[in-house]
Amino acid sequence: MAKQDYRIGMIGYGFMGRAHSNAYVQANNFFDLKYRPVLKAICARDEAKAKAFADQWGYQSVETDWRKLVERKDIDAVDVCVPNNLHAEIALAAAANGKAILCEKPLAMNVAEGRKMVEAVEKAKVPNIVWYNYRRIPAVTLAKRLIEEGKLGKIFHYRAKFLQDWTIKSDLPQGGQGLWRLDLAAAGAGVSGDLLAHCIDTAIWLNGGLDTVSCMTETFVKERMHNLTGKVEKVGIDDACIFFGRFANGSLANFESTRYARGHKALYTFEINGENMSLGWDLHDLHRLQVFDYRDEGKIRGWKSVHVTDNSPDHPYMDKWWVPGLAVGYDCSFTHQVADFLDGLASGKPAGPTFRDALETQHVLDAILASAKDQKWVTVGKD
Amino acid sequence: MAKQDYRIGMIGYGFMGRAHSNAYVQANNFFDLKYRPVLKAICARDEAKAKAFADQWGYQSVETDWRKLVERKDIDAVDVCVPNNLHAEIALAAAANGKAILCEKPLAMNVAEGRKMVEAVEKAKVPNIVWYNYRRIPAVTLAKRLIEEGKLGKIFHYRAKFLQDWTIKSDLPQGGQGLWRLDLAAAGAGVSGDLLAHCIDTAIWLNGGLDTVSCMTETFVKERMHNLTGKVEKVGIDDACIFFGRFANGSLANFESTRYARGHKALYTFEINGENMSLGWDLHDLHRLQVFDYRDEGKIRGWKSVHVTDNSPDHPYMDKWWVPGLAVGYDCSFTHQVADFLDGLASGKPAGPTFRDALETQHVLDAILASAKDQKWVTVGKD
Amino acid sequence: MAKQDYRIGMIGYGFMGRAHSNAYVQANNFFDLKYRPVLKAICARDEAKAKAFADQWGYQSVETDWRKLVERKDIDAVDVCVPNNLHAEIALAAAANGKAILCEKPLAMNVAEGRKMVEAVEKAKVPNIVWYNYRRIPAVTLAKRLIEEGKLGKIFHYRAKFLQDWTIKSDLPQGGQGLWRLDLAAAGAGVSGDLLAHCIDTAIWLNGGLDTVSCMTETFVKERMHNLTGKVEKVGIDDACIFFGRFANGSLANFESTRYARGHKALYTFEINGENMSLGWDLHDLHRLQVFDYRDEGKIRGWKSVHVTDNSPDHPYMDKWWVPGLAVGYDCSFTHQVADFLDGLASGKPAGPTFRDALETQHVLDAILASAKDQKWVTVGKD
Amino acid sequence: MAKQDYRIGMIGYGFMGRAHSNAYVQANNFFDLKYRPVLKAICARDEAKAKAFADQWGYQSVETDWRKLVERKDIDAVDVCVPNNLHAEIALAAAANGKAILCEKPLAMNVAEGRKMVEAVEKAKVPNIVWYNYRRIPAVTLAKRLIEEGKLGKIFHYRAKFLQDWTIKSDLPQGGQGLWRLDLAAAGAGVSGDLLAHCIDTAIWLNGGLDTVSCMTETFVKERMHNLTGKVEKVGIDDACIFFGRFANGSLANFESTRYARGHKALYTFEINGENMSLGWDLHDLHRLQVFDYRDEGKIRGWKSVHVTDNSPDHPYMDKWWVPGLAVGYDCSFTHQVADFLDGLASGKPAGPTFRDALETQHVLDAILASAKDQKWVTVGKD
Repeated sequence: MAKQDYRIGMIGYGFMGRAHSNAYVQANNFFDLKYRPVLKAICARDEAKAKAFADQWGYQSVETDWRKLVERKDIDAVDVCVPNNLHAEIALAAAANGKAILCEKPLAMNVAEGRKMVEAVEKAKVPNIVWYNYRRIPAVTLAKRLIEEGKLGKIFHYRAKFLQDWTIKSDLPQGGQGLWRLDLAAAGAGVSGDLLAHCIDTAIWLNGGLDTVSCMTETFVKERMHNLTGKVEKVGIDDACIFFGRFANGSLANFESTRYARGHKALYTFEINGENMSLGWDLHDLHRLQVFDYRDEGKIRGWKSVHVTDNSPDHPYMDKWWVPGLAVGYDCSFTHQVADFLDGLASGKPAGPTFRDALETQHVLDAILASAKDQKWVTVGKD
Repeated sequence: MAKQDYRIGMIGYGFMGRAHSNAYVQANNFFDLKYRPVLKAICARDEAKAKAFADQWGYQSVETDWRKLVERKDIDAVDVCVPNNLHAEIALAAAANGKAILCEKPLAMNVAEGRKMVEAVEKAKVPNIVWYNYRRIPAVTLAKRLIEEGKLGKIFHYRAKFLQDWTIKSDLPQGGQGLWRLDLAAAGAGVSGDLLAHCIDTAIWLNGGLDTVSCMTETFVKERMHNLTGKVEKVGIDDACIFFGRFANGSLANFESTRYARGHKALYTFEINGENMSLGWDLHDLHRLQVFDYRDEGKIRGWKSVHVTDNSPDHPYMDKWWVPGLAVGYDCSFTHQVADFLDGLASGKPAGPTFRDALETQHVLDAILASAKDQKWVTVGKD
Repeated sequence: MAKQDYRIGMIGYGFMGRAHSNAYVQANNFFDLKYRPVLKAICARDEAKAKAFADQWGYQSVETDWRKLVERKDIDAVDVCVPNNLHAEIALAAAANGKAILCEKPLAMNVAEGRKMVEAVEKAKVPNIVWYNYRRIPAVTLAKRLIEEGKLGKIFHYRAKFLQDWTIKSDLPQGGQGLWRLDLAAAGAGVSGDLLAHCIDTAIWLNGGLDTVSCMTETFVKERMHNLTGKVEKVGIDDACIFFGRFANGSLANFESTRYARGHKALYTFEINGENMSLGWDLHDLHRLQVFDYRDEGKIRGWKSVHVTDNSPDHPYMDKWWVPGLAVGYDCSFTHQVADFLDGLASGKPAGPTFRDALETQHVLDAILASAKDQKWVTVGKD
Repeated sequence: MAKQDYRIGMIGYGFMGRAHSNAYVQANNFFDLKYRPVLKAICARDEAKAKAFADQWGYQSVETDWRKLVERKDIDAVDVCVPNNLHAEIALAAAANGKAILCEKPLAMNVAEGRKMVEAVEKAKVPNIVWYNYRRIPAVTLAKRLIEEGKLGKIFHYRAKFLQDWTIKSDLPQGGQGLWRLDLAAAGAGVSGDLLAHCIDTAIWLNGGLDTVSCMTETFVKERMHNLTGKVEKVGIDDACIFFGRFANGSLANFESTRYARGHKALYTFEINGENMSLGWDLHDLHRLQVFDYRDEGKIRGWKSVHVTDNSPDHPYMDKWWVPGLAVGYDCSFTHQVADFLDGLASGKPAGPTFRDALETQHVLDAILASAKDQKWVTVGKD
């Protein structure tokens, strides 16, 4: 198959910039795709850093102004890999320039912003996707398949947590390189937008939409030195966020995220309890899916730990990798997303989550923060 | 040490009747106690069943009217091991007759009832305890010790769940022998009073009182055949109950219980996250305590699975049992409670949870049910 | 059912004396049996200790000379709960007096002694059993059932380990109360007789006989102070023992035991790999059976952790205990053995392992020690 | 840092060819290296397949005769990624042409061949390394560091297993593409050379050399259809291999490998028991290291599951990847090996295992196969 170049312009060079870049490099080595990503340009305000990143990853050129990048004729797709408060502006400009957009999550700072982004890409008819990468961990994709096959029956419960412990230290500053996630102005929210956004995206994908929610948040450390101003300032983000609610299918939601759960690095877990089958997954052992199958013979019923590493169509994506028993890592989720995105371009069936899909998560985020603020139940908005 | 007989009158003969009886038998075989329980009388309305139980366990006599039992002169302590709606009436009569009382949990149908029971035992000055047995699982008691030693530092989170799956079947009847827990009139509530009561008792013991709560409940199966009336009737209990809230120490609560979590038999779990240490426990592997110690050397920090089976004072109660590595079962929690109760009689320092202690749990139960009903935050009452 | 007294005379009062006594007490409380054990007499050389034990457990009388005990007319069964070097002499005398015998494991110091014991009980036609208690852990009994149902297909591998760490300390003495297991004269061997004996008994029960073995042993600490002589003496026991071999069914054996595996308290594990199913168990989580079922649907094949706690006939013995999810402990294995032994008396179908069954384990023990000594393969003897 | 091209000529394109290619691509994206691999040429007998591979991975040219490849002037290093029976011939020719050599494991068919290879590379003074990749799984490298720091104290035991189940099917052919590992002529041995070779390399690296061994092997399926001849032929490889022995440091070895352990895909596990610390690892959860630290406080001693994912120097290699909690996969071990190999070129301190290092593993392999054949203990040869 003759491959066609697909020219990427990346804006941002942090942890996610590296994860995306690796995915662009790996996608065609492991998947048979019509399009082959070309690392055309990297954009960052700090030219030296941008150049270093370009050298390391093989980007062919460097920009320091994202407006110039989104206007370049030799770019097919813009990867928006910057703090949340810049997503909308860049995406709107990229859409106006007819670029495909791969945008980091959460889509936007709020529903209002997100809605404009959806309108922009739909009006411009440009391919668009949001980096809710966990959908494409093979074990998570397998969960989706089992649910689509109807194996679970009626669903009663969906639980998700995303627990970290890296901000317990009260002398950790807020804001600036590597720490913008603690800065309300840059991030828009705390663990809700950063971590629960992932949990909500997966939940909607697996279990459908949420109708109503009730939420509480907490900010344990009230003030932190701000890296950009040098002053001790009030912390505006939520350090912890818990909500419950009801899904449209009648099942109950229990979600929690925090950065104060000592001992957990990035423990994203979910469990879904159906009448006939329950499923569980956690990011710390991302290559396993926990399955309880009630239809198993009674005396040997139990939770199965499925090592999702068979190089067969049984295990999503895994026929492209190694042999049974050999696990892939966190990075594979991005490689799979690039592969699916490029496949979607070729087939005309866009891979999700599109901006429109991601707007639904934004509605839940707005609803839980409103609920926490007003201390009451909130109905999740729809578009 | 010359032992003194301690004459037990047991009311009820179900699953809990057996667990308590085994504890009375085992306590002096494993612990050095001043008092030795004597199985004096068993009481049940069905005389044949009472006799069969007496034969099996060696109870010396049988009563069919609990009023007669609580008046017998040859009884020192009454074990109230009947459905929740009978606790108060029996306990009041037993106190009036000067009997010590060991009452099944939850203490009462509600705070109002529970308050009368506390007043009665305190006025009568009779020893009293409630069977919140999980405090005395060695791994749970070890958690208590670590907290008391201050090892955890500031507490941020306390999470507990009690998940079961035995009522998913919609043709399971409600009410009657073995199923009174599904009958609102007998049980007073569903999973909240039956299961969350345990979680709340442990939480208060380990982490102090709860100030405010917000709760939701659900009844998945709306109607069931009632075993006593033979008619299909509305189900009044909560099948699932989720609440969050704040402890007095500033930590956040996330509690959930359900009988619709396919794959979980009796999965009572808790986790407490402190600044310096986190602890986790689950009833399915009750002999283990999970410990994360932040003061461990960085490169080998991780969750430790402590097999709480050393026959040394290091591991609570375990010096009375076997050798390291050999686990005790669920039943030990009752044996330990009897041993501690009898030790408390001898020392004059009553073992908890007393009726007064258990009333605090009742306040939380009332608060969460009120919150679920009114869909708003509720402040937990105090006595 | 009218119960008949079954009068027990126990010789020994150590850790095992307590485990057996608890079993005699519990058996009829949980199982419906024709015979009810009566704790008739306890025998120990130290009268004060014997009396204290009798007081604690309710033995009706005390003996200080086991010869007197085995001659008493009011004793139905003798429980031989003393160091290994005394088993044969006591058992022969007990058989000569027509007593049933419940003998601690291993049966004897060697095959020659064991053979005499088998002859004695078979000649005297007295009921006899050896306390290889692990057969009656419910998860292990469930493994037996699955194998008997043919679920595993052709067997390829059987692996067992029994790992401890309590003798690493080189200043631990050998010999005397609580430490006779380190004394060659009293124990006959080290970890082979003490720990591997259990592994071998289970293996033969589950997988049939062993044909040939090759073994190595090691004594890490060469000299220890002897508690009885007060002198530093050469250590004669094996501290570690590894062997491989072939079962009669063609499967391969890999067995290992040690008391120098830091971190393991009593980690008895086995795994059996069949064509269609594999099973695994470990003593540290004794209430679980690990099951891999190849016939499961490919995409959700995985190791199942079966929580063997259903109070139904599905899970052996568990219908006599609590409700699903509530685990029994180590002690249950002895209670089950007493129940089965008494049932065997009533039914005329003796429960195993009889002395004759246990002699087969003794043959393997002799073979592995001979192999280690001569550094060559050895064929396992048969009787 | 100006990078220098390092031109790779790869021979072979199977599963390992892909793993190595990915490593060459990733190394400089994640590590700061002086040399940057260039995928210069791929060699395979089947030109179409070689071209397809070159297209997929970006190799610049194709060869169908490895002799031509090893003579090309524009190649710096030859990657020998072909069945075992071709390693020696190719390596000798590559060395004669002054090429660096990266050779798949095991080094050779036997010690005699391996010795010639060592002589050739040492005489030619060409950089050389063998792809025993598991040394560079971060958790395994961390184990090495802990041992080097002396944390374990005296070592008593080292156990390793490599269990698979993919050849149970008796109608699986032997020989040919993807199945040469079942063909004695191509592989030289069965699970010993394929799987135990890994276990032995890691063991020698972590625990030093083996002195003496005793081994058994088994071939469960005696005949299989041969893919190349089309005939049913005797199977010559070992399907299972178990050995024990003594390390030079006095510790005991217990090793086992099989392809008939139903339920295990690629379960490489090792455990090392030291006086003060024990370590365990398994390939199915390769990002975790199990650590038991005896110096922990008694009451909270337990096995720690260390999630080796901190992006700090604490966790080897992980500062180059993501953030804490995000695991790398199997493939990282190759990327790390390439990075270390290239670093070794730059620093003049060659990364191991060199051919000479790998010869020691070959000695153990020869010894265990000789022991199995002759059914006796064998002393491991030294060079």
